[in-house]
Amino acid sequence: MYRMPYGFGPTAGPRQGPDNGPFDWSNTPRRWSAAVSFLTDPKSLDHLLPPQFELAGEPVVTVEFFVLSELAWLAGRGYSMLQVRFPAAFGGNRDRAVGTFLSVLWENLADPILSGREELGFAKLWCDLPPPRIMGDRVTCAASWLGHEFAVLELSNLVEAEPRTPTYPGLGGSQNDGTLHYKYIPKTGEWGKAAVAHACLTPPAGNPTTQRLRIGTGQVTFKPTTWEQMPTQYHIVQTLAALPVLEQREAWCVETRGASDLSQQRALA
Amino acid sequence: MYRMPYGFGPTAGPRQGPDNGPFDWSNTPRRWSAAVSFLTDPKSLDHLLPPQFELAGEPVVTVEFFVLSELAWLAGRGYSMLQVRFPAAFGGNRDRAVGTFLSVLWENLADPILSGREELGFAKLWCDLPPPRIMGDRVTCAASWLGHEFAVLELSNLVEAEPRTPTYPGLGGSQNDGTLHYKYIPKTGEWGKAAVAHACLTPPAGNPTTQRLRIGTGQVTFKPTTWEQMPTQYHIVQTLAALPVLEQREAWCVETRGASDLSQQRALA
Amino acid sequence: MYRMPYGFGPTAGPRQGPDNGPFDWSNTPRRWSAAVSFLTDPKSLDHLLPPQFELAGEPVVTVEFFVLSELAWLAGRGYSMLQVRFPAAFGGNRDRAVGTFLSVLWENLADPILSGREELGFAKLWCDLPPPRIMGDRVTCAASWLGHEFAVLELSNLVEAEPRTPTYPGLGGSQNDGTLHYKYIPKTGEWGKAAVAHACLTPPAGNPTTQRLRIGTGQVTFKPTTWEQMPTQYHIVQTLAALPVLEQREAWCVETRGASDLSQQRALA
Amino acid sequence: MYRMPYGFGPTAGPRQGPDNGPFDWSNTPRRWSAAVSFLTDPKSLDHLLPPQFELAGEPVVTVEFFVLSELAWLAGRGYSMLQVRFPAAFGGNRDRAVGTFLSVLWENLADPILSGREELGFAKLWCDLPPPRIMGDRVTCAASWLGHEFAVLELSNLVEAEPRTPTYPGLGGSQNDGTLHYKYIPKTGEWGKAAVAHACLTPPAGNPTTQRLRIGTGQVTFKPTTWEQMPTQYHIVQTLAALPVLEQREAWCVETRGASDLSQQRALA
Repeated sequence: MYRMPYGFGPTAGPRQGPDNGPFDWSNTPRRWSAAVSFLTDPKSLDHLLPPQFELAGEPVVTVEFFVLSELAWLAGRGYSMLQVRFPAAFGGNRDRAVGTFLSVLWENLADPILSGREELGFAKLWCDLPPPRIMGDRVTCAASWLGHEFAVLELSNLVEAEPRTPTYPGLGGSQNDGTLHYKYIPKTGEWGKAAVAHACLTPPAGNPTTQRLRIGTGQVTFKPTTWEQMPTQYHIVQTLAALPVLEQREAWCVETRGASDLSQQRALA
Repeated sequence: MYRMPYGFGPTAGPRQGPDNGPFDWSNTPRRWSAAVSFLTDPKSLDHLLPPQFELAGEPVVTVEFFVLSELAWLAGRGYSMLQVRFPAAFGGNRDRAVGTFLSVLWENLADPILSGREELGFAKLWCDLPPPRIMGDRVTCAASWLGHEFAVLELSNLVEAEPRTPTYPGLGGSQNDGTLHYKYIPKTGEWGKAAVAHACLTPPAGNPTTQRLRIGTGQVTFKPTTWEQMPTQYHIVQTLAALPVLEQREAWCVETRGASDLSQQRALA
Repeated sequence: MYRMPYGFGPTAGPRQGPDNGPFDWSNTPRRWSAAVSFLTDPKSLDHLLPPQFELAGEPVVTVEFFVLSELAWLAGRGYSMLQVRFPAAFGGNRDRAVGTFLSVLWENLADPILSGREELGFAKLWCDLPPPRIMGDRVTCAASWLGHEFAVLELSNLVEAEPRTPTYPGLGGSQNDGTLHYKYIPKTGEWGKAAVAHACLTPPAGNPTTQRLRIGTGQVTFKPTTWEQMPTQYHIVQTLAALPVLEQREAWCVETRGASDLSQQRALA
Repeated sequence: MYRMPYGFGPTAGPRQGPDNGPFDWSNTPRRWSAAVSFLTDPKSLDHLLPPQFELAGEPVVTVEFFVLSELAWLAGRGYSMLQVRFPAAFGGNRDRAVGTFLSVLWENLADPILSGREELGFAKLWCDLPPPRIMGDRVTCAASWLGHEFAVLELSNLVEAEPRTPTYPGLGGSQNDGTLHYKYIPKTGEWGKAAVAHACLTPPAGNPTTQRLRIGTGQVTFKPTTWEQMPTQYHIVQTLAALPVLEQREAWCVETRGASDLSQQRALA
């Protein structure tokens, strides 16, 4: 597999090691995450969807902060993520799929951002994600961009629960094909046109083990943000800040081991 | 112009502001750069070229460290770059162009990396680029990735010269159409195949003013680097470290104002 | 001169090089600064003074953001500072001095913080100080601590002025002996007692050359900050945020070369 | 308890919260550490000792990398440390104590460096300490200063062991009064003289719970470092790099909960 710069040969990454083979994802990475969900107005979510997508189930937004460590493809290093997702369905000419749409995700390391955007079609952006602040049954996670803090997750009243893999809320027990994305790459020189534009699906994969689960209450705040404060991302933060919070839903803090290299990712049409 | 995440609407960037119009590049950014060149073995360079490219002129590699500031599209912020280039020619089915091939460039901020790769086809990667160290007539610039220093530029004996825009060496006075690139985006799910793969050209543009020029001697060192030290980029550093230095060429340190938004960038075929 | 760790021998720093001699400060560092001043209520300032200090002249607070580069003692590197000062007088048993009291200063590099606190008695703390944002006649400088932005300086309408060294406002043309400080080191094991507690004076020194001066308008904002957001420094930010701004005074943006190693710093009694 | 800046009132820190009371250290912080020990030449260590100190037991150096998290005094945040210690005895006019001498320790956050140096007499310095790289039974920890990597710890063949608190090697089963330090603060204006200079002792305190222990083999490398690469710390790295490694001793990786606020720290005379 190649990525730019092309001339130096294949580039190692999540899906191929220095010997071009896959990594072992059975027992690592470790993954710590804190998630907060809320019910919002479907009209606010609807216009965040790409072409051929529509809302599915309940309009429940989940914002989740991840700390990944012991990643084999990064030679034992880790990084952090902040994801925003909600239930949606894709209806294309060939494919139909229902799942949670990964609207935007921030990561604090550029290398997985590049492979994630270009190979997988994940809508990854960069920001600073300081380590979570943990004080007993309270957890605070924040995101900032060059000194401007634009998002804060606060969880409290966390109590131990029987370890299980939490399900993203909104689809209930109905069909869930995985995580939905929209890959878009502009066309060079023909500004405004696309070189690549299609939906993608991440089917369920990997067999992570949940080691600890805590359930509690939580809330997320996206802060007022101007063009001057985040000149390439203010429009995203403003849109998320404007989503009405009609009802707080569940909040969790979970620790797992093991994941997938996402090589099952595929284009939808 | 859109970039991922698509659903939040057009994304501001170097080529469109919050009102979707262009920025004024006539008097800013300020640009400080230090460059070192050396003659190498053409056989070593030849296999760094993408399809339909071949070497042109002399096989002289230029490594240049830039500090950009007062960028309008970043609301007055800046960032730094480390570029590696050498003369080459592209011969396609439709187009022919001669210029310097931008083999790889590192930047220390993800936002311009994303727009540069996806809109322009620049082979941008991320690394840490600490501010240059300046001690009288000596300058040292270094690049590191998560604590591993992989490149050092050292210039010395710098003396003031009449301000002019330095020319990248190797093509002499012959035809120079601009900077050449190879845009490559993988195809999701069909691993190993390309969704986008073509050459690009940056024609000369903008009207920068050179405010200060110093000429001296210099050298560049790419350090021994293992997969464990830079698991996504070691192959690039190893390749650059292996280029024989047959002869040091000129070294300069230059300060300019003004640039272009590179909207003249176009695909070659 | 020794600093901890003691056992490895003398420690190089601003006032002694690797050969134990002084550095040449005549032509470097370069210093870029942006300052904002405002008149406040003397009662608010009065209780920020250490023992044996009292207010002098007008109660005008100056907040100044510095970018230092080409520092010889850091082998050509630089760092940034944010300073808060106002006019005051020291009356001790032996010494009397009038000047501006350096109430607190933040720096974004620990090494000068340690030598500054321990050798000089400067009230230095650490924070992030991103490079200033410069957009034509406007300048914005900000300070943050692990993602929490706690101070913003905004200057506008900057116009070129005849280069001169700006004077900190408040003392008018009256006596000015330099910069005043209060050195305080706690006593180990006898918590609440001091091992060192005395005033210090930085007399005027060095012969900096002003290369560019711009004068304009400006304002400074210290943001609401809780213990959780800055657990070691919130009390300082809260106190500065509570200072009433009775009148904005002058704002400047200045560029100089040359400084002093501050070896004239002395204890007052 | 006060620290500079003095005028803003008492400063919260490890030993006093926003209400001036102590924190609860019984169950947090969490502490992950990796340690490597080696036998060296006593003559090399001897001249690293401050006045009134002498070597004790075997000349075994232990280098340990710590990751602290969930620190109550930092509102749930954490930081990392790299410590160098070896057995020594202090014989003063009044006190005698045997323990391990904490020769130097690096931390990646300035706030605990300031309280540690000034309140406790710990020989703390700042550097970057990226998160440890963990690959199954192998662990790599590194330290760098503004891009220059100066120390690497590598542990391998780690196998699970019965959880216990590891003991720093070298003193065998003989008397161990705790950790020894030498507090040194220079005198302002009388360069070369001390304002504070005395030994300190950290007696055993707190009741940490060991949750996981792994034992293996390991080695530490201090890299060649010039004044230009680390202008305030090169002499320390050079000295540590020159210590002969006569024999590798044990290496461990341990995870604990709970600590002490070190308020038992006291001056020796």
